[in-house]
Amino acid sequence: MTGREMHDLVTRLYPLCRSITGDGVRRTLEIIQESIPLDVHEVPTGTQVLDWTVPKEWNIRDAFVRDPTGAKVIDFAESNLHVVGYSVPVSATMTLDELRPHLHTLPGQPDLIPYRTSYYAETWGFCLRHETLSALGPGPYEVRIDSTLADGHLTYGEHVVPGESADEVLVSCHVCHPSLANDNLAGVAVAVELARRIARANPRYTYRFLFAPGTIGAITWLARNRERAGRIRAGLVLACAGDGGPLTYKRSRRGNAEIDRAVEQVLRSSGRPHTIIGFSPYGYDERQFCSPGFDLGVGSLTRTPYGAYPEYHTSADDPGFVSPEAMADTLETCWEVLGVLERDRRYLNLSPYGEPQLGRRGLYGSLGGRSDTRDDQMAMLWVLNLSDGDHSVLDIAERSGLPFDLVADAAHALADAGLLKER
Amino acid sequence: MTGREMHDLVTRLYPLCRSITGDGVRRTLEIIQESIPLDVHEVPTGTQVLDWTVPKEWNIRDAFVRDPTGAKVIDFAESNLHVVGYSVPVSATMTLDELRPHLHTLPGQPDLIPYRTSYYAETWGFCLRHETLSALGPGPYEVRIDSTLADGHLTYGEHVVPGESADEVLVSCHVCHPSLANDNLAGVAVAVELARRIARANPRYTYRFLFAPGTIGAITWLARNRERAGRIRAGLVLACAGDGGPLTYKRSRRGNAEIDRAVEQVLRSSGRPHTIIGFSPYGYDERQFCSPGFDLGVGSLTRTPYGAYPEYHTSADDPGFVSPEAMADTLETCWEVLGVLERDRRYLNLSPYGEPQLGRRGLYGSLGGRSDTRDDQMAMLWVLNLSDGDHSVLDIAERSGLPFDLVADAAHALADAGLLKER
Amino acid sequence: MTGREMHDLVTRLYPLCRSITGDGVRRTLEIIQESIPLDVHEVPTGTQVLDWTVPKEWNIRDAFVRDPTGAKVIDFAESNLHVVGYSVPVSATMTLDELRPHLHTLPGQPDLIPYRTSYYAETWGFCLRHETLSALGPGPYEVRIDSTLADGHLTYGEHVVPGESADEVLVSCHVCHPSLANDNLAGVAVAVELARRIARANPRYTYRFLFAPGTIGAITWLARNRERAGRIRAGLVLACAGDGGPLTYKRSRRGNAEIDRAVEQVLRSSGRPHTIIGFSPYGYDERQFCSPGFDLGVGSLTRTPYGAYPEYHTSADDPGFVSPEAMADTLETCWEVLGVLERDRRYLNLSPYGEPQLGRRGLYGSLGGRSDTRDDQMAMLWVLNLSDGDHSVLDIAERSGLPFDLVADAAHALADAGLLKER
Repeated sequence: MTGREMHDLVTRLYPLCRSITGDGVRRTLEIIQESIPLDVHEVPTGTQVLDWTVPKEWNIRDAFVRDPTGAKVIDFAESNLHVVGYSVPVSATMTLDELRPHLHTLPGQPDLIPYRTSYYAETWGFCLRHETLSALGPGPYEVRIDSTLADGHLTYGEHVVPGESADEVLVSCHVCHPSLANDNLAGVAVAVELARRIARANPRYTYRFLFAPGTIGAITWLARNRERAGRIRAGLVLACAGDGGPLTYKRSRRGNAEIDRAVEQVLRSSGRPHTIIGFSPYGYDERQFCSPGFDLGVGSLTRTPYGAYPEYHTSADDPGFVSPEAMADTLETCWEVLGVLERDRRYLNLSPYGEPQLGRRGLYGSLGGRSDTRDDQMAMLWVLNLSDGDHSVLDIAERSGLPFDLVADAAHALADAGLLKER
Repeated sequence: MTGREMHDLVTRLYPLCRSITGDGVRRTLEIIQESIPLDVHEVPTGTQVLDWTVPKEWNIRDAFVRDPTGAKVIDFAESNLHVVGYSVPVSATMTLDELRPHLHTLPGQPDLIPYRTSYYAETWGFCLRHETLSALGPGPYEVRIDSTLADGHLTYGEHVVPGESADEVLVSCHVCHPSLANDNLAGVAVAVELARRIARANPRYTYRFLFAPGTIGAITWLARNRERAGRIRAGLVLACAGDGGPLTYKRSRRGNAEIDRAVEQVLRSSGRPHTIIGFSPYGYDERQFCSPGFDLGVGSLTRTPYGAYPEYHTSADDPGFVSPEAMADTLETCWEVLGVLERDRRYLNLSPYGEPQLGRRGLYGSLGGRSDTRDDQMAMLWVLNLSDGDHSVLDIAERSGLPFDLVADAAHALADAGLLKER
Repeated sequence: MTGREMHDLVTRLYPLCRSITGDGVRRTLEIIQESIPLDVHEVPTGTQVLDWTVPKEWNIRDAFVRDPTGAKVIDFAESNLHVVGYSVPVSATMTLDELRPHLHTLPGQPDLIPYRTSYYAETWGFCLRHETLSALGPGPYEVRIDSTLADGHLTYGEHVVPGESADEVLVSCHVCHPSLANDNLAGVAVAVELARRIARANPRYTYRFLFAPGTIGAITWLARNRERAGRIRAGLVLACAGDGGPLTYKRSRRGNAEIDRAVEQVLRSSGRPHTIIGFSPYGYDERQFCSPGFDLGVGSLTRTPYGAYPEYHTSADDPGFVSPEAMADTLETCWEVLGVLERDRRYLNLSPYGEPQLGRRGLYGSLGGRSDTRDDQMAMLWVLNLSDGDHSVLDIAERSGLPFDLVADAAHALADAGLLKER
């Protein structure tokens, strides 16, 4: 799948009205299943999940506000952002003064519709352009939200690529946002393609891709997979994967987990402009995976992080805001990170006393005296020097400043020559 | 007690001729007792205290140098700095040449009288303005020091504010300097007021305030309280508390003791200009409290540190050199530091798997989607995330960058909601 | 031996044609023995040394390339760099095209002869100025290398200065380079003089000086001294000791071994311009001493490091490239480093509760109140404060920022006064 195809998937998923439950999520998972198979889980309303309870399922058919002339001044059909997520049904006529407490705008961005939800406090509301609000007369207005909030299910999908090892790498993205492209359809598209790629690679680790609503979805998965969570060796939460900004990696709570070091290695040695930030207990589902009871080595990869671009959580986060090139770059970065995880291991130098004679094994140039040394030979010397059982390939790449792949290749060549064994 | 009242205390104590023993110290402690009760200890001359011996007691009634015309060219009545501390009695007539080895001046600050002592080598001397010395004729001079150096006592005062815990916080200041305001009457005044304030707060820790002569006083206290020293959890040596410079905190020998981190937290988050310096075995009585056998978590708080202002140990360190505002600011800083010590503790997140649902407990806003998060909510998330038993409130404030009180308030609210328990 | 004498030794050794074996090394060791006695070891060809085998011995009498007019266009008698080290004998006539694969030049430095070797791949070759090559006609050429490559020995020399302790300090330098002055005759000359100096000092440690061919020599020594290697407490590999650049110290693999800290202490407190670089498994024989099986605390001291000066491994690295002054400075630095190793030890403060009273022991000035403190008194206070059994003199010098010798002197004075005992 190229950047173009990932962008097509974003565009196709964009119109669906997703929330933390409901048919929008189901339809999203169906479309993903055209690319990769999913185990789709339906968890009934009322199920206790860790400290939370699976909420009622929310679905919406239509919603509008009609002015005295009969014109729809707010229309769900135009944008599903117009309705506050989880709004209870309403059918009433009211004045602007009565309606106004239910209206949400962005006075500083008057031409954009904000995105708002109220999952756990039963209420209703509309989001609209501030310039629309400014033009509204006193009313009365016909106000309709044709929604249902009733016992049902929370829906999430899982895709597993089995590896040689039962140790898992988790890739998680949220599927609960309605018409917002960067947050998080771009993340979904990158995850789908990453799943396809790793499956073709016969990986060492087992890869688990999670497509679930934010917060309650991750919590539901964790509640139902407490044991499995202990097998997660590394993980990435993907979001905001398609905007034009440079990559941002947010470290896991541990701060120096293997995933943290792998991502930093890739970003640093690739020369991509990027930012590394420390963990904070806010953001995406790394909040749950990094809660102290789990404390998993899971970081978050985005381009521009949440809240740091003006289009965030507004109608301007549309498919035009994300680009095939940016998604392709995010995908490639993820792929390189998986490459580090896959290839990182510890070797033991079987000839640790002095340097082994590389020349007679054909691993070293025979002409002495030159002042330059090739990086591949430096990589072999570093691997031999540090393969004392305490250092992995990634450790050696970090200490030597050489690219990870060069060090991994050197280790491979030395192992082939019988000078190293894998620990 | 306001800054003004602290300044009044400085002004009242200023004329007394203090030294490491004698009636000047006794009178100083009597005046302090008008504000807070003291246990006054009298330790006899000759008592062995650690590696030292309590010296003879020194008192002085008068001293002068009279020129051939009968005029007093140096007069103790004008300033008690004129006499080298612990000068033995003298009554003689001598030429300037004979007198000169006993005269101490500051050629670089010719209009100031220096402060000099000779506690452990029996001698006598006068300190005077260099410009006075320059004008002296050949003499002969009548030289008189009407002092006594005889068996007696070393005097110090203690004030204890009992807390819930027997663990102690020590506040120590030296009371051995004669007419010097910043060093250390300002420190004494701040300590007195801090003692009054903490008593009104029903503190968690027991607070011990020590008013003792420098070096030998601290050594005497330590010698008589070896067991108790082990209960000192944190401490501050106060000096130079009233000049116009920014605050300087000198870390304990340990460097990362709770007091070090508490003071740095307060200074950093208050926005006060300040300097943090590492421990060195010179300065005030932190030298004794941080000797390796005790190694207490005791730092030193000053404004401009000793020796770093031109008025240091001269007649220019008078009540006009210290201000009510500076003393009030030092006091407030100390108070905030005690607040951190008092409120710092470890909690355990009782719901460590995923985030607990704060919304249903009324601890979190219900409207989702906004890009800003209030600091108080961030504080709750940080407390939950890091309350794994390894992190205290202060640890969490440091890692999150949030103000200590906000984090402590969040922890309190979460504990009230049953989500945390104190360890 | 002054800088001038060290330079004379360089000049005397310069014309010899050294390689990793052969009479050039033997003659070099003979000349060194005029200054210090050596144990000269002869290790037969074919001896297994760690992962290597002692190679055949190489000797050369003459070599040239004669053009059709009979003129020697390349002549070993002019410079021994003209022949690739370990060239097998050749006696042939060939065209320039046939000869050219055996010719090595530096196109970017056309007036210099490069230094090249081929120890472990049997071949032959000439090194020449690129400008000479450019002027060569098509030939034919008479090509002669009158060398022998045959079973023989590898030769190295050792000089041991016994100390009070069997713990050893190793100083190693390579003696395998032909006419190259900075790399490494300057290192040899400095090592010789250092050996003479330390012998006069009745040292605490045993000092072992190793004069051996690079790589295979160190490997041979290590193979024959596996047990002894464990006694090496610290070591320096000396090379490039005479050029005009500032000193460069390359840390041992451990990075914070005593030698690393000693050299850094000397370089920092001496005010010499210098560079400290991390370990890398390339360079000189620190590669072998720091292989993971040995992991000795051995660093490398040079002035400009290998490969970082344009004269490196060319005919421009001649006696004019090294100076008596630079060698004297390198020697003095080494000497100061040995001084730190010799004097570093841990003391225990026997009076750790409070400060001991230095005044009554004559260790402290009696006049109090001055704002300055002498560095020697600060050194005593630091030694007392940190001599808790965890800190050595070097630790105290590092933490206090005071010069090592001042701290060592203070410790000595305090020990003499009965306040410290050596641990």
